Amino acid sequence: MKRIGVIIKRASNEAKSAAGGLEAWLKNKDMEVFFHEPAADKNSSRRAPDSSLPPDLDLVVVLGGDGTLLYAARLVGQTGTPLLGVNLGGLGFLTEISMIDLYPTLDKVLRGEFTVDSRMMLAVELKRKQTAVARETVLNDAVINKAALARILELKVKINGEDLTTFRADGLIISTPTGSTAYNLSAGGPIVHPAQETILLTPICPFTLTNRPLILPESVEIEVEMDARASDMVLTLDGQAFYNLEPGDLVRVSRARTTTAIIKSPYKGYFEILKTKLGWG
Amino acid sequence: MKRIGVIIKRASNEAKSAAGGLEAWLKNKDMEVFFHEPAADKNSSRRAPDSSLPPDLDLVVVLGGDGTLLYAARLVGQTGTPLLGVNLGGLGFLTEISMIDLYPTLDKVLRGEFTVDSRMMLAVELKRKQTAVARETVLNDAVINKAALARILELKVKINGEDLTTFRADGLIISTPTGSTAYNLSAGGPIVHPAQETILLTPICPFTLTNRPLILPESVEIEVEMDARASDMVLTLDGQAFYNLEPGDLVRVSRARTTTAIIKSPYKGYFEILKTKLGWG
Amino acid sequence: MKRIGVIIKRASNEAKSAAGGLEAWLKNKDMEVFFHEPAADKNSSRRAPDSSLPPDLDLVVVLGGDGTLLYAARLVGQTGTPLLGVNLGGLGFLTEISMIDLYPTLDKVLRGEFTVDSRMMLAVELKRKQTAVARETVLNDAVINKAALARILELKVKINGEDLTTFRADGLIISTPTGSTAYNLSAGGPIVHPAQETILLTPICPFTLTNRPLILPESVEIEVEMDARASDMVLTLDGQAFYNLEPGDLVRVSRARTTTAIIKSPYKGYFEILKTKLGWG
Amino acid sequence: MKRIGVIIKRASNEAKSAAGGLEAWLKNKDMEVFFHEPAADKNSSRRAPDSSLPPDLDLVVVLGGDGTLLYAARLVGQTGTPLLGVNLGGLGFLTEISMIDLYPTLDKVLRGEFTVDSRMMLAVELKRKQTAVARETVLNDAVINKAALARILELKVKINGEDLTTFRADGLIISTPTGSTAYNLSAGGPIVHPAQETILLTPICPFTLTNRPLILPESVEIEVEMDARASDMVLTLDGQAFYNLEPGDLVRVSRARTTTAIIKSPYKGYFEILKTKLGWG
Repeated sequence: MKRIGVIIKRASNEAKSAAGGLEAWLKNKDMEVFFHEPAADKNSSRRAPDSSLPPDLDLVVVLGGDGTLLYAARLVGQTGTPLLGVNLGGLGFLTEISMIDLYPTLDKVLRGEFTVDSRMMLAVELKRKQTAVARETVLNDAVINKAALARILELKVKINGEDLTTFRADGLIISTPTGSTAYNLSAGGPIVHPAQETILLTPICPFTLTNRPLILPESVEIEVEMDARASDMVLTLDGQAFYNLEPGDLVRVSRARTTTAIIKSPYKGYFEILKTKLGWG
Repeated sequence: MKRIGVIIKRASNEAKSAAGGLEAWLKNKDMEVFFHEPAADKNSSRRAPDSSLPPDLDLVVVLGGDGTLLYAARLVGQTGTPLLGVNLGGLGFLTEISMIDLYPTLDKVLRGEFTVDSRMMLAVELKRKQTAVARETVLNDAVINKAALARILELKVKINGEDLTTFRADGLIISTPTGSTAYNLSAGGPIVHPAQETILLTPICPFTLTNRPLILPESVEIEVEMDARASDMVLTLDGQAFYNLEPGDLVRVSRARTTTAIIKSPYKGYFEILKTKLGWG
Repeated sequence: MKRIGVIIKRASNEAKSAAGGLEAWLKNKDMEVFFHEPAADKNSSRRAPDSSLPPDLDLVVVLGGDGTLLYAARLVGQTGTPLLGVNLGGLGFLTEISMIDLYPTLDKVLRGEFTVDSRMMLAVELKRKQTAVARETVLNDAVINKAALARILELKVKINGEDLTTFRADGLIISTPTGSTAYNLSAGGPIVHPAQETILLTPICPFTLTNRPLILPESVEIEVEMDARASDMVLTLDGQAFYNLEPGDLVRVSRARTTTAIIKSPYKGYFEILKTKLGWG
Repeated sequence: MKRIGVIIKRASNEAKSAAGGLEAWLKNKDMEVFFHEPAADKNSSRRAPDSSLPPDLDLVVVLGGDGTLLYAARLVGQTGTPLLGVNLGGLGFLTEISMIDLYPTLDKVLRGEFTVDSRMMLAVELKRKQTAVARETVLNDAVINKAALARILELKVKINGEDLTTFRADGLIISTPTGSTAYNLSAGGPIVHPAQETILLTPICPFTLTNRPLILPESVEIEVEMDARASDMVLTLDGQAFYNLEPGDLVRVSRARTTTAIIKSPYKGYFEILKTKLGWG
């Protein structure tokens, strides 16, 4: 490993300070280091492609929290470069390394002593009048939500072209196993171990009380058609990119061809992180 | 009974047609009849006070669904005039009379053979920088919701001036027993028999999984303070009046002094309606 | 206050040790002290009436946890004697006083500086072939449960003589507001502030997914009729008294005439205890 | 196809009558037909191996409901013989053929026009003091439940030898995707499409409110160790075989090597059955 990218949580002095120490430590080991901080408008769906990180990195260190790692996955996840997620405060589902373990972990990683989780992603396409107006890849979830002023949504869902049902709900979460412990959990969905390949479809506050979370094979294509009457709907990708939806729009979700490579903590297993985050036992 | 108001579901030909028949039937019995159809901008919080119905009615017949009855309750509920809710399609929690039972029921009502449910209401005040910018009375619920683009809300809640907790959630529903079978039910709250006087506080998709619905004494005052950082929040009253919220705004909810008088169906009890609506048994 | 009862958690050395210190402290203040430790068969429904505590006590101190306080409520709750619940380890919903606060709290209580929560109780009657085979009063809940070998139960429920529905479920919890944070919470029911008078009916793992927890007026009489085919059902009162049920048995529950008087902690409010127990914030 | 087995719902005149018609119809087509009706003690874990059906059948028709099909899967599922589930009343998740479609479907099946779902099963082993006292294969679920008199269970769970947590709950459901729409759904678990290979771990009424249903890779081995203090626990397999558990017992669950072959309805897809059974739309 020679070329290391570092993605820094936006507007965080703590992250910047950690980045300074990391730069000195890496250069002392003769590494080339490239920094990137998300621009202020990172939440915009119209953001320009970012060019501050070269494409041929050996490793990307993320200094921040799960949000920063999701950003990193959208930026470089598809290149296959392994991501090392470092959490500045506590512990994240995706940022398993705490600051105190950063340098011992990096030592191991640079020696090649690490294992990688290949996390399934979702390919999301937004179609308007037969034209694809957006194509993105997400690590956690694609969420269709009503804006606050909207009435209850009617979302017609097809699985592999077959009608499933029309959900009357506040919205719909389509999630990977990795995303199961994010928004899906608050909406009543189950915890899905991220070693699996499966797609979760979880309605948000459904009007029909028997509309329960649904776990689908990773091979399906899900199509959600917006109600012709509804308006003020929004598609949110990994909590970071937003698209206003229009009546008749189609959101098509299937498994992405690429995965995100996340370096596992040498110190904590998945169940240990789960128990800590959810306060079990 | 001499003076009868009729509130007609907006833009519904079916409701207008039923209103025509009702007018003839009532005039044939020497009643004075006054009609009112909500204006197109009924969803606006800036709507002008409506003056098409005189204040001294003996009875108000609602032709529509539960939404139209909520509108009627906001319009005339505080006068104490009994409301007769007629559902044009099927059965509502608030509109217990079906079209087929309309005339037999009216016959009884005009003879004085009816009982009335006094439904508790909530007084909602929106305070901005020490000033009350809105005061309304609701029959179902006051809902604080994030707009679709907003991040998770932080809502600081006090009960009688004592800190309860800061909810991190998509929103918060404050509901009467009558409103318990509306949005509250979709958000995971319980069914509360409307003969009771109690206030429900139900978080919507809470981040903290142990934040469960809370049933509070009818004597409490609930204050919800908007997060200083958050924006794009909306206060929705009975699903019909909307107020954009600003950081630092305070929503104060307590029991209203007035109640809404709803005429009970002579044909169906509360549990029968509940079972039918929820598909029990 | 002159005559103090002390109820000690069964078979707990820690409770016995605390009782020794308490006896010395109380006698030093010229109090008469009476001790009671539940007999080993306290879980039996056939237990003899206990006579180790005289009837005219001024105060009963409970050294144990919520289970011991429920026992105390069943033993002396109906006499109106105030109960002071001391929790030997941590904090309970009913035992709000920690060991470290015991003597400062008792000082206040003996000076008359305390307030009392009057907690609503439920009167439970078990009828078999027109005969009442048991009558008890509970502070938390009456639970009808299937034994492990039984198939799904069919429980026919009437409210004030009117059919509600036939629940197909693992069981049914009928609870006071005080009991809402016990078994009811695990079964999906809401938190009900104990200052209210209301009865909760919560199905356990219902087959019909729309069978949601139901909050009923405190004035209702609930009757649950056992399925003629079912067997191996058990009625459990406050988790402590057990009755085997037979096909055709009737369990009748209504508000009890008596309440249990629990001395409030001078140091912690209800919401503070709730937040601590549920790990909010 | 030449040799057809028919398994008939126990003690059902309707099933016997249908079996009579089926026998005539099959013999008219020169089939050999073998009947089997479960013995009265089918619920016992000590039942003798049944020998009324020969081992080399080409097809087994099940006349009953989902319970009868589960029985059939336990009896002949491991031989790989395809099962055709016929539901005598309505529609089942496993018995997709209604009586009215029986003969048209059989016509297709005998001509070889059918597709088969290979449903994953679970291998369940009960170990007591290092000895396997039972080994069974289930199509739906293995459930560890408290008997009604027992206190809350403490169930220590390991996944692949790693501690997960100790569940304090009424019990634990370990389920296949096929079993997800059975007991799992009543306990709050998700719907899992049966084309997937995954194992569900769903706690029943957990004391810790953040103990949510968990979806695990099909490759895991789950071990549940009974609390040394607890007693009166029962292991139930597919709702049909029961084993009393003792303190220290170990229940070990992993994917079974065999699957059950269920003939798909030519008339109804999985989602259509799901929607009908759950009353969607």
